[in-house]
Amino acid sequence: MVLTKTADDISSMRIRGAGRIARTAAGALQEYGTSLDCDTLAAFVREMENAADILCGTRPTAVSLPNAVRFVMQGVQGSTTLEEAQGALNKRAVEFIRDSLAAVGKIAEIAARQIPDDAVIMTHCNSEAAIACIIRAHELGKVREVYATEVRPRNQGYITIQMLSDAGIPVNFIVDSAARMFMPKVDLVITGTDAVTANGAVVNKIGTSQIALCAHEARKPFIVAAETYKFAPRTILGERIPIEYRPIEEVIGSERQLPAGVVVKNPAFDVTPPAYVDLIVTEIGAFAPSYAPFVIRDHLGWDTSEFQKDYAFTHHYGE
Amino acid sequence: MVLTKTADDISSMRIRGAGRIARTAAGALQEYGTSLDCDTLAAFVREMENAADILCGTRPTAVSLPNAVRFVMQGVQGSTTLEEAQGALNKRAVEFIRDSLAAVGKIAEIAARQIPDDAVIMTHCNSEAAIACIIRAHELGKVREVYATEVRPRNQGYITIQMLSDAGIPVNFIVDSAARMFMPKVDLVITGTDAVTANGAVVNKIGTSQIALCAHEARKPFIVAAETYKFAPRTILGERIPIEYRPIEEVIGSERQLPAGVVVKNPAFDVTPPAYVDLIVTEIGAFAPSYAPFVIRDHLGWDTSEFQKDYAFTHHYGE
Amino acid sequence: MVLTKTADDISSMRIRGAGRIARTAAGALQEYGTSLDCDTLAAFVREMENAADILCGTRPTAVSLPNAVRFVMQGVQGSTTLEEAQGALNKRAVEFIRDSLAAVGKIAEIAARQIPDDAVIMTHCNSEAAIACIIRAHELGKVREVYATEVRPRNQGYITIQMLSDAGIPVNFIVDSAARMFMPKVDLVITGTDAVTANGAVVNKIGTSQIALCAHEARKPFIVAAETYKFAPRTILGERIPIEYRPIEEVIGSERQLPAGVVVKNPAFDVTPPAYVDLIVTEIGAFAPSYAPFVIRDHLGWDTSEFQKDYAFTHHYGE
Amino acid sequence: MVLTKTADDISSMRIRGAGRIARTAAGALQEYGTSLDCDTLAAFVREMENAADILCGTRPTAVSLPNAVRFVMQGVQGSTTLEEAQGALNKRAVEFIRDSLAAVGKIAEIAARQIPDDAVIMTHCNSEAAIACIIRAHELGKVREVYATEVRPRNQGYITIQMLSDAGIPVNFIVDSAARMFMPKVDLVITGTDAVTANGAVVNKIGTSQIALCAHEARKPFIVAAETYKFAPRTILGERIPIEYRPIEEVIGSERQLPAGVVVKNPAFDVTPPAYVDLIVTEIGAFAPSYAPFVIRDHLGWDTSEFQKDYAFTHHYGE
Amino acid sequence: MVLTKTADDISSMRIRGAGRIARTAAGALQEYGTSLDCDTLAAFVREMENAADILCGTRPTAVSLPNAVRFVMQGVQGSTTLEEAQGALNKRAVEFIRDSLAAVGKIAEIAARQIPDDAVIMTHCNSEAAIACIIRAHELGKVREVYATEVRPRNQGYITIQMLSDAGIPVNFIVDSAARMFMPKVDLVITGTDAVTANGAVVNKIGTSQIALCAHEARKPFIVAAETYKFAPRTILGERIPIEYRPIEEVIGSERQLPAGVVVKNPAFDVTPPAYVDLIVTEIGAFAPSYAPFVIRDHLGWDTSEFQKDYAFTHHYGE
Amino acid sequence: MVLTKTADDISSMRIRGAGRIARTAAGALQEYGTSLDCDTLAAFVREMENAADILCGTRPTAVSLPNAVRFVMQGVQGSTTLEEAQGALNKRAVEFIRDSLAAVGKIAEIAARQIPDDAVIMTHCNSEAAIACIIRAHELGKVREVYATEVRPRNQGYITIQMLSDAGIPVNFIVDSAARMFMPKVDLVITGTDAVTANGAVVNKIGTSQIALCAHEARKPFIVAAETYKFAPRTILGERIPIEYRPIEEVIGSERQLPAGVVVKNPAFDVTPPAYVDLIVTEIGAFAPSYAPFVIRDHLGWDTSEFQKDYAFTHHYGE
Repeated sequence: MVLTKTADDISSMRIRGAGRIARTAAGALQEYGTSLDCDTLAAFVREMENAADILCGTRPTAVSLPNAVRFVMQGVQGSTTLEEAQGALNKRAVEFIRDSLAAVGKIAEIAARQIPDDAVIMTHCNSEAAIACIIRAHELGKVREVYATEVRPRNQGYITIQMLSDAGIPVNFIVDSAARMFMPKVDLVITGTDAVTANGAVVNKIGTSQIALCAHEARKPFIVAAETYKFAPRTILGERIPIEYRPIEEVIGSERQLPAGVVVKNPAFDVTPPAYVDLIVTEIGAFAPSYAPFVIRDHLGWDTSEFQKDYAFTHHYGE
Repeated sequence: MVLTKTADDISSMRIRGAGRIARTAAGALQEYGTSLDCDTLAAFVREMENAADILCGTRPTAVSLPNAVRFVMQGVQGSTTLEEAQGALNKRAVEFIRDSLAAVGKIAEIAARQIPDDAVIMTHCNSEAAIACIIRAHELGKVREVYATEVRPRNQGYITIQMLSDAGIPVNFIVDSAARMFMPKVDLVITGTDAVTANGAVVNKIGTSQIALCAHEARKPFIVAAETYKFAPRTILGERIPIEYRPIEEVIGSERQLPAGVVVKNPAFDVTPPAYVDLIVTEIGAFAPSYAPFVIRDHLGWDTSEFQKDYAFTHHYGE
Repeated sequence: MVLTKTADDISSMRIRGAGRIARTAAGALQEYGTSLDCDTLAAFVREMENAADILCGTRPTAVSLPNAVRFVMQGVQGSTTLEEAQGALNKRAVEFIRDSLAAVGKIAEIAARQIPDDAVIMTHCNSEAAIACIIRAHELGKVREVYATEVRPRNQGYITIQMLSDAGIPVNFIVDSAARMFMPKVDLVITGTDAVTANGAVVNKIGTSQIALCAHEARKPFIVAAETYKFAPRTILGERIPIEYRPIEEVIGSERQLPAGVVVKNPAFDVTPPAYVDLIVTEIGAFAPSYAPFVIRDHLGWDTSEFQKDYAFTHHYGE
Repeated sequence: MVLTKTADDISSMRIRGAGRIARTAAGALQEYGTSLDCDTLAAFVREMENAADILCGTRPTAVSLPNAVRFVMQGVQGSTTLEEAQGALNKRAVEFIRDSLAAVGKIAEIAARQIPDDAVIMTHCNSEAAIACIIRAHELGKVREVYATEVRPRNQGYITIQMLSDAGIPVNFIVDSAARMFMPKVDLVITGTDAVTANGAVVNKIGTSQIALCAHEARKPFIVAAETYKFAPRTILGERIPIEYRPIEEVIGSERQLPAGVVVKNPAFDVTPPAYVDLIVTEIGAFAPSYAPFVIRDHLGWDTSEFQKDYAFTHHYGE
Repeated sequence: MVLTKTADDISSMRIRGAGRIARTAAGALQEYGTSLDCDTLAAFVREMENAADILCGTRPTAVSLPNAVRFVMQGVQGSTTLEEAQGALNKRAVEFIRDSLAAVGKIAEIAARQIPDDAVIMTHCNSEAAIACIIRAHELGKVREVYATEVRPRNQGYITIQMLSDAGIPVNFIVDSAARMFMPKVDLVITGTDAVTANGAVVNKIGTSQIALCAHEARKPFIVAAETYKFAPRTILGERIPIEYRPIEEVIGSERQLPAGVVVKNPAFDVTPPAYVDLIVTEIGAFAPSYAPFVIRDHLGWDTSEFQKDYAFTHHYGE
Repeated sequence: MVLTKTADDISSMRIRGAGRIARTAAGALQEYGTSLDCDTLAAFVREMENAADILCGTRPTAVSLPNAVRFVMQGVQGSTTLEEAQGALNKRAVEFIRDSLAAVGKIAEIAARQIPDDAVIMTHCNSEAAIACIIRAHELGKVREVYATEVRPRNQGYITIQMLSDAGIPVNFIVDSAARMFMPKVDLVITGTDAVTANGAVVNKIGTSQIALCAHEARKPFIVAAETYKFAPRTILGERIPIEYRPIEEVIGSERQLPAGVVVKNPAFDVTPPAYVDLIVTEIGAFAPSYAPFVIRDHLGWDTSEFQKDYAFTHHYGE
């Protein structure tokens, strides 16, 4: 069955990447709903909510997964007849997949307008959306050259320079430590993001916040390309995006022996505060980080009151 | 009659504290409405609006009072029949009181998630909501110790350290002037607030803005615990929160003679600019200060156009 | 015919000024719609949309023009019968013109509340709205004196000092370069704006951003008076406000010969980042710059999805 | 014998205050040297060095004491005959005492020139030198009013307002927490200091660094009045000025019981970084904090190589 | 007689410019000394000191004048015979004039090394020394283009662009208000100075501090070209450089009538704080602003103790 | 012959490291001088100056080499007889070598006093001096743990963690990009330096300036351990420390093919501005960066006038 297999694929990381996880989950819900043979709306909703729970449980810290499930399920939960619910399920799954696929293109189109002529752009890590913005600006004849970082410890910079080279864009490849040194030569910085919190903080590849700080110091715009499914609804309720600490072998390789008393700390992400982010470009527009809660509320459709059902606020302070 | 007595109690400050004032006013409206014997919706609304005016006039500078009255009256004013209006009155008064009572618990639950493990927290003044956050984090095993200030001139710090001590939390008691010195040892600062303006500024006990500046200087999160009824709608129209200057005896005691030419200035509050506030935690979520106008508009239900009725914009500039 | 003439007057700059352009366009649409003799709603809408396009094309970079047209046309486009559409056209045109005329008065009323007693105010360029704020504060007895800049190259400062003098306000006239020197003597700065972008940046007369930086350095509030029709919807999609470069004669006069190898750069505007703007005062309230997208979306009525129709996002990146 | 008595008086704090300690020690050395009956220069120097050691050992953390002893002893140690040494002892002791007594007057004279007309000045704690600056400026007709802080926990602000009142200067008395709130009304801040380190940091009464930060935030000059004997030579070798933690009774009084788990931290001083100090006014001139090592080296006469004799650098790293 | 005539020429401003005034004064002293017919050293010194006083009194606020006189007179005052004094007078006058003439060339040589290849340089006002730096860098092939400001109110920018044009350097001419807008395109800023204070502040043409702030905001080096005779010795004793307010006709022309209640404030200079100055290039080297007191003390030869003779520190505070 | 061999060894980088180069050069001069058979002082000086020139020419950009040669040669050049010159040569060579060897130990002793108890220290690259400071503080029981960076591209971090591990100090090993993320857990940062310029800028391993910026952002002291021979005299005359760009194989290895259009930029160093450096600890004391010109002038003995002999200031601007 698709649902089980998808859940397993996501859980085991055979399916990776925020966008692919989200679209696969939307598709799995759609297929599962089509296969159901329920007599009543209530039964249908119950089964679907069960399926939604299974999917959301596979990668509890992924941001795009619950956004996708939530978007599709809103159609089911808002219906008043079984037929309406089934129709809404299909419609919203198709819509989510379509919009998600189109998101990067729209982001690139919007961000390219922000890029001035003859631009020198710095990027960090390997973000499909950020690279699309640069390529689109290049197609418009606006890009002089790019500074791309190595991106320790996993060296995703090599993928980035290959993609930019394939697009015919001149690239300077530098170690992560050299970002501040070359910042005066740069006109703006563009990165992707793994998650955006409700207060506009950007959770992205380790090192991003350092580069954002350097850009801020030198009055260079720092722009984040972010599909709306990267926004993290539960941060409204104070939840922090957990920062994954990855295997030390990524840093030191598999053969080296560490000296006694030395531990490796290998966080995958860091947090860039909103004060260092000039613009977040999504497929629905380019905004200051302060717009983040409205992407969550008005676009993704999460309702604050709804969250609160999940929480037993048993501690009654007050009178 | 309850209405008159409540109005008097608020006016004479027998009922104090933003939360209590608000809940008492909501209850008084409810009781007053129940006691009315009107034949028509129009008459009922007229009587209720009259009552609302009386209540709002008792403490013109209180922020929570008009928020409570407004919330309850929206039900009355939006009804199309007398019965509907009476029902809405009851429903909304109950809802306001219930939510208000639960607010601190929810704030504590949300804020506690923002507090890291083994946290050292600084607080200023004696805020029920801020202390609830610390205690909730302590229950979750996250608090190493607290720095609490003396809070001149009224020394509310003594109440704070008693409350924290009662909860079993280790506390360092310091004079207000020592906040910057100990800031490097602190992981984050939490305070309450008396009012939040439409542009996200925080009006709180004198000294708060100084501590927020010190936290900002040292890259420490500055978090404000604020029930939504603390947000000040009329600041959208440019009104400034009046800063109360209190009796000089609070500072110098009742027996000291001041030298000639010396005056005491004893402001009760100061204003912390939004740039120094990292997060405002309300019972409906944790937000950047930029969310403030939406608490006012979307949650408290104040409509900008409605304000404008109050104002005679008689000066017509323009062509 | 009014439409053609209006289009021509705007295009040839016989009609100038953001407010006048907007109101004239609204009036022309109204008159044009009244003159139409259509049988069906579809035909009426088609004709009106055609007229709207003609008007919007006359000054492609004006911000207020499409805001006015959009506001009026929303009534037409949202109607379900011909009569409704005609009525809505009239109603919205009248409403736009009325509100636009009243806007400066409301802004002045709101901003004056933000001005403290005995205030020393700095202003730059010649903004009807900013001057109205100062005059209103002066009527309330709050203004000690004003610092007004010369405003090179067109010396609009002379108009400003005449207007302030006429109102009986003491004025210090300084060259633009002296703004930082006198900033310590100033309590707050108020300017107008030509456009506000979706992320809260303020596009105004060249030199504004420099003064805002000086105000920020000295912890002085920097307030912008902005009618809502100054907010630029298309910036949500990444469009940048084009900065007009004006004739060099404005700078050097018509008779001077420039030495070889010297070019004059005469930008009319610069961009003040939102971080240096404390408050934007509109006729619907005073907000932080982060409120800008909501003026566009919730007040001006631009819908993000609607924008996207205009754009062929043909580049499909993605999996 | 004077030497023993003086050592005892300093040790037991019967003699207090940086200036008095320093002058008393210089006088004691002079008297002791006069009383000696030595046949050779070597014997005289040996006795005097012994006396110097005794005096310096009485308050190991005082800054002015070794500065005074060092100044006087330089004459003795630099002499080539017994008579020359005795003469130099007298001459330098007299000179130190005279200059030390005159220092505050000179500081006041110099600092008063930095104070603009109609000045509003903030001061913190009770510094003889800072108050002298204000009074001198007042004599020159330059002072509008002063903001003086309460200075918790020992409330030295009451002494300050008495001294300013006696001089006929209008004073506003505020709690320490209100410094940031009133900073916009202030033209400059003047404080004294207990010690200045070799890198220009100012060690002064707890709360000073907070006020300096507030002044820096608002672009207000922060001026420190410092006799040269306040500069701390040994900080050149990395020594930190120890921050004294004083009895908790100063904060909570002698009768209050603290709740369980509460400790009072009562540091007497904090450290203001040089970046927040605009000018240090000494009796030999007004300088940026970067001049501090030259006060130590060129004026106080401490030689870096001399320090190094005291230290056994036994760890030989390197080849 | 030369002395009288020179004094008169300086006083009446027939001789202008910091460098010319200084050199003329040195030459006049030399000639006057040569013409004297004294029998004793004492008489010669007395006559010369008298002459020095006359010269210094002609322009009490000029900085270079007392520096020149002081430099020459040191030779006279340090001599032990009449012949030695006469020789020293000649030697030092020649030396001062020679070094002063060579200073700009040396400054240009030193500063040019700091300018990177393909540099875009901004300058303000018309400084011989700053322009020499740019021209020298241009000779080394390092200059792409220059941004030169108009320099209201006296428009010295026109002289600057002529000089740069004559040297074959491409120039962009902008109004003063446009400095911040073009700062991102600039690699570094170079200006001259009228005076440097003992704490490293730079007193220069109005507007300089604003541009320095903009450079600081954008992490662009701000370099000041300053002959050593521009350093102001008396600022060590707290004296402030008086800011000259010049005739209002410079701003508004001679024919315009100002509206009632309007005054023009036309300060010639402003003060750039040392924190915004990256490098001061003198003919004896390139230094941080913190080096300023050593130019005064070690190069110009002013001794702090010497100043103090001038001042009657009659107020003896202290015990 | 030693001189030739040493010159060759330095030139070919068989002898590396600022300290070793300096000491070897001093020793070679000594040995060469001893081997000379000159009859006159003039001949001896001529031969020695020739030798000095040969040594200084071997690594034109090394900072320590001319400092060593200069220190030794000052003895020769200052002598008045041949014997005196020979003696001075020996004495100063021995002194330089001895002090240089002892420098790190003294630096460690001084810096350890600046380290607070239970300190968490971050370091970057592999500096013998910085590590000695940490180890000395560890011997004093003050170090909790260290954060050490990987130091791309040459991974010197592995040497650092080995040295710290050998000393028994707990270490966290992180990628360079993670410095900002862990900064809140750190109490201070210590690095070494390759060169210090006359205005106090620190030239050190690429990435240092980024970490210094992060420390500055979080109010953490940034301390540089610098032997005095690291100070760069010629920067006083505007010379910039050339930043070496090293082979791209250090970054990408020897086997990887770069995509078309991609170049690697591999600067070995970057420049940390003095504003981000809190303390420079040398063997003669701990200072603010503003002390740098005095290390050069007063300790290393470079005389500004002496520099100027090297330069033909042929461009005479001025009258």
